[in-house]
Amino acid sequence: MTDTPLDLNGIFPPVPTPFADGAVAYDRLAANVRRWSATGLQGFVVLGSNGEYPLLTDDEKVRTVAAVAEAAPADMVIVAGTGCESTRATIELTRDCARAGARAALVVSPHYYGGRMTDAALAAHYRAVADASPIPVLLYNVTKFTHLNLSPALVADLARHPNIAGIKDSSGNVGQLGEYLNRVPGDFKVMVGTAGVLYGALSLGCAGGVLALANVAPAECVRIRDLVASGDHAAAAALQRRLIPVNTAVTATYGIPGLKAALDRLGYYGGPPRRPLLPATEAERATIAEILRTAGLLDK
Amino acid sequence: MTDTPLDLNGIFPPVPTPFADGAVAYDRLAANVRRWSATGLQGFVVLGSNGEYPLLTDDEKVRTVAAVAEAAPADMVIVAGTGCESTRATIELTRDCARAGARAALVVSPHYYGGRMTDAALAAHYRAVADASPIPVLLYNVTKFTHLNLSPALVADLARHPNIAGIKDSSGNVGQLGEYLNRVPGDFKVMVGTAGVLYGALSLGCAGGVLALANVAPAECVRIRDLVASGDHAAAAALQRRLIPVNTAVTATYGIPGLKAALDRLGYYGGPPRRPLLPATEAERATIAEILRTAGLLDK
Amino acid sequence: MTDTPLDLNGIFPPVPTPFADGAVAYDRLAANVRRWSATGLQGFVVLGSNGEYPLLTDDEKVRTVAAVAEAAPADMVIVAGTGCESTRATIELTRDCARAGARAALVVSPHYYGGRMTDAALAAHYRAVADASPIPVLLYNVTKFTHLNLSPALVADLARHPNIAGIKDSSGNVGQLGEYLNRVPGDFKVMVGTAGVLYGALSLGCAGGVLALANVAPAECVRIRDLVASGDHAAAAALQRRLIPVNTAVTATYGIPGLKAALDRLGYYGGPPRRPLLPATEAERATIAEILRTAGLLDK
Amino acid sequence: MTDTPLDLNGIFPPVPTPFADGAVAYDRLAANVRRWSATGLQGFVVLGSNGEYPLLTDDEKVRTVAAVAEAAPADMVIVAGTGCESTRATIELTRDCARAGARAALVVSPHYYGGRMTDAALAAHYRAVADASPIPVLLYNVTKFTHLNLSPALVADLARHPNIAGIKDSSGNVGQLGEYLNRVPGDFKVMVGTAGVLYGALSLGCAGGVLALANVAPAECVRIRDLVASGDHAAAAALQRRLIPVNTAVTATYGIPGLKAALDRLGYYGGPPRRPLLPATEAERATIAEILRTAGLLDK
Repeated sequence: MTDTPLDLNGIFPPVPTPFADGAVAYDRLAANVRRWSATGLQGFVVLGSNGEYPLLTDDEKVRTVAAVAEAAPADMVIVAGTGCESTRATIELTRDCARAGARAALVVSPHYYGGRMTDAALAAHYRAVADASPIPVLLYNVTKFTHLNLSPALVADLARHPNIAGIKDSSGNVGQLGEYLNRVPGDFKVMVGTAGVLYGALSLGCAGGVLALANVAPAECVRIRDLVASGDHAAAAALQRRLIPVNTAVTATYGIPGLKAALDRLGYYGGPPRRPLLPATEAERATIAEILRTAGLLDK
Repeated sequence: MTDTPLDLNGIFPPVPTPFADGAVAYDRLAANVRRWSATGLQGFVVLGSNGEYPLLTDDEKVRTVAAVAEAAPADMVIVAGTGCESTRATIELTRDCARAGARAALVVSPHYYGGRMTDAALAAHYRAVADASPIPVLLYNVTKFTHLNLSPALVADLARHPNIAGIKDSSGNVGQLGEYLNRVPGDFKVMVGTAGVLYGALSLGCAGGVLALANVAPAECVRIRDLVASGDHAAAAALQRRLIPVNTAVTATYGIPGLKAALDRLGYYGGPPRRPLLPATEAERATIAEILRTAGLLDK
Repeated sequence: MTDTPLDLNGIFPPVPTPFADGAVAYDRLAANVRRWSATGLQGFVVLGSNGEYPLLTDDEKVRTVAAVAEAAPADMVIVAGTGCESTRATIELTRDCARAGARAALVVSPHYYGGRMTDAALAAHYRAVADASPIPVLLYNVTKFTHLNLSPALVADLARHPNIAGIKDSSGNVGQLGEYLNRVPGDFKVMVGTAGVLYGALSLGCAGGVLALANVAPAECVRIRDLVASGDHAAAAALQRRLIPVNTAVTATYGIPGLKAALDRLGYYGGPPRRPLLPATEAERATIAEILRTAGLLDK
Repeated sequence: MTDTPLDLNGIFPPVPTPFADGAVAYDRLAANVRRWSATGLQGFVVLGSNGEYPLLTDDEKVRTVAAVAEAAPADMVIVAGTGCESTRATIELTRDCARAGARAALVVSPHYYGGRMTDAALAAHYRAVADASPIPVLLYNVTKFTHLNLSPALVADLARHPNIAGIKDSSGNVGQLGEYLNRVPGDFKVMVGTAGVLYGALSLGCAGGVLALANVAPAECVRIRDLVASGDHAAAAALQRRLIPVNTAVTATYGIPGLKAALDRLGYYGGPPRRPLLPATEAERATIAEILRTAGLLDK
């Protein structure tokens, strides 16, 4: 852990967890991290949905955080996904991941008992976690997996907690991003979690993005952010549109198996997902390679 | 009908249909149209979802189009919602609305038998309508009401038809707007149907918007488009964010009754919706007025 | 119209509307009705979802009711689907269908503006229709198509209206059927609209069923009811289970096109659906025939 | 573990896990189990959704199974919920729970990555678990929490595995129960998981039920089964309908907090749920007590 202030502005890939022979391949992960570190990324999100966090044991989770923290340059920010269904388990894992080197905790909303996850229940959960956490907490809204949404009213309420630093929103709902931005203090970071709307989110005022796409096209995602910062909206929009098919392939269409297949093709270690996720088929791998080629990601 | 080429670039309000004593109040509608005509709007969408089209008879529909066409300046573009569940009824209504002065037809996807509305069924429907229509056809994707989505693949396919000129997409999904833009010819117009993402959509390359918000804040919606065109993204994003609460009020929160209440408050004629829609309550009207005031829409 | 009291106990097929050369084939419909009339059915539901009511003009609707009323024996009960999105249109169509021979009106819940169809809005709608209708009203809950549910509380409330005689529930939710039965007066008829749960619904206390399956297996559906009435639950359950694959074929899997294909195969006139519905393919027709054969419906 | 053959016919409560001071109250659990054991139940399901399994640590899970196995009479069947998101974790927990006394494993479908849980992925998962498990496996379909459905085709396929003994279906879809029954071998047990359709499911041929309601009305649930077995369908349907409001209260309306409040009122130990679940309010407790009283469950 460093003493520099936490800086969440920028692009973060939610790094896939590599497996070999059924076990986490920490060395492969470290090698990937070292290569990503040269691309302008602001840091890494470990144990996100793309990190297959629900398929890891608690021990594997902590070791995965430690492996990334060790492999990454000291000035890159390590964020760890520490959300569990129970409040007490979330607190415990958050503390363990902080010790392992995480600078912030990304806490997915509990969701199994979705019908009972009222704003009151969610607020109490997040407050308890934030009160107990040694590191800043980021809310994590990923409706595709949780089937529930963190409302702007709830986010505005939680944003006032001194140890809740921001939100990663993967709902894909740009209108809601605008509502979040409207209602939170300026130092609360709204980060977009879907690359398909990266440009739109940044131009609206988001601090950055946590994007599956940033694993396979890190420099291009960083460039979109730089273009927006420099006011070159036309170039940003054009680059955004060029990357959409790649993003669709490694998220909606082929999911984590497709993301890992793309990494394999790009010279990173992707490898197989953990069961029950099935690996991409050969035909899917060929299609993914073609999509990468069309987007100009294999020429370099 | 004029001889000038159809120009869909710009902002269109989907005008509410005013009622008095249970009947369509054509004179009130004409008065509203005349007032809106001075605000920089490109034209009017009549018989959209905000126009309560499912609650009108065919005869009322045609007369409503005629009333707007007569009241509007000749250079403003009249678009009529002509989609019905059956292909043959859609064709007939499209012809009638063209005769009444519509320059283009907005055709909502059939949806009652949603489970059978495959891409093949939808493509055959839209092609049959476009083949028979005397005016250009716009696809209309409004998932909130139809519970089905027009996929980018289907839209790309239909965009090649010479009499299908564009799409109004009200899904709120900016990522999908990008996918549409990626896959259609340059002269196919992608219009955003949700004001909450207007700025994001325009900066991505959309031609314009059909926005409930444009009924109550026409000049402001036009201004967002002008700011994007002139490259002043910061001002566009700021104005977008200021208008979000107003848009939420007249769409998601209070719906058409809220939209009509807002019009009443702004000096237009809103009036009651048609049953089974219930009018806004007094408490809702007061809240809506406060939201308009906060957004600076009552000062002028 | 007869003077005998309305008797809704029993099995009703929601009769498909036959088309030839794009027009309603009233003669084909009459021939079908005459054949169905010899199978023990209690009556006919005209203009239900399986009757493609959203694809008919108002004039066709009224003539279809008249054709069935004329072809059916005087003691069979004709129910007409008269629900429209607007309250006033529903009232008008209900009156016209009553004049054409309908003994009761099946009124689907308005649903396009589903988000605003609160219990208050739905109650006001149904009360206004029932107040104005010359014939008893049946509520129609078909969540698959309407994407909204009539709650037990609302149904219990409306069941007290003297001109609301029952409900057809096609949600498939047997637990909710039990809740309805628990909360309505004894003379309010709860009719199940999904053949997959016919036996379960009847044994729980439902008055009868309105079943797509009753078009292709009328005698068998009637027999399930008779077996339950006579206390032979084992035979009823066995017959129910034997019919499930047929029911799945003519509803969930192949929909109205499949239902019409099955009718064709059984010697009725099915014919094509109206566009945008596409007809069953040859392969689908072959599969459907095989399913009919396996269920023993082609031997007779 | 006993040597008697596994008998899954009958009624099982999914027992809530009691907490005191934040820890599992194993003694309270044992006391509840001893009291339930005198009511005619066939056995216990431990670590089901009503057991708050997602909120327990692995260690707590195994100890909870052991506590129930120790407290229950030897002839009662202990089933343990052992499903995890990952295949390997599920196998490990299944083995541990078998050692702790479980006679069968109830394996909820993995669901976080629902979009990728194809029939192929689910079949591979269940086969791997069943191959490795020392005790029979039961599939667990609970769409309300998992947002995915185990299709009849998949269930029919898995039913042929020698170590997959049945399914608990909590979808509430009686039609689908019929489809399951149609397609599985006679020794494959289909158990209904929603008390609202208990009677309908049993009369259709289900082996038994795993019912939240059986925690608060065990004798009544057993009686419904006995009535169906003896052919007294009228009495079974009447009792079913009387219990519906209680079932609704302890499931859909008030969930686990309501179930625990009802247990408290009935003299069992309910206690608070674990966070993020919030306990029932005083007002909710009063309503629940009233519902129990109306159903005649407080007189005894």
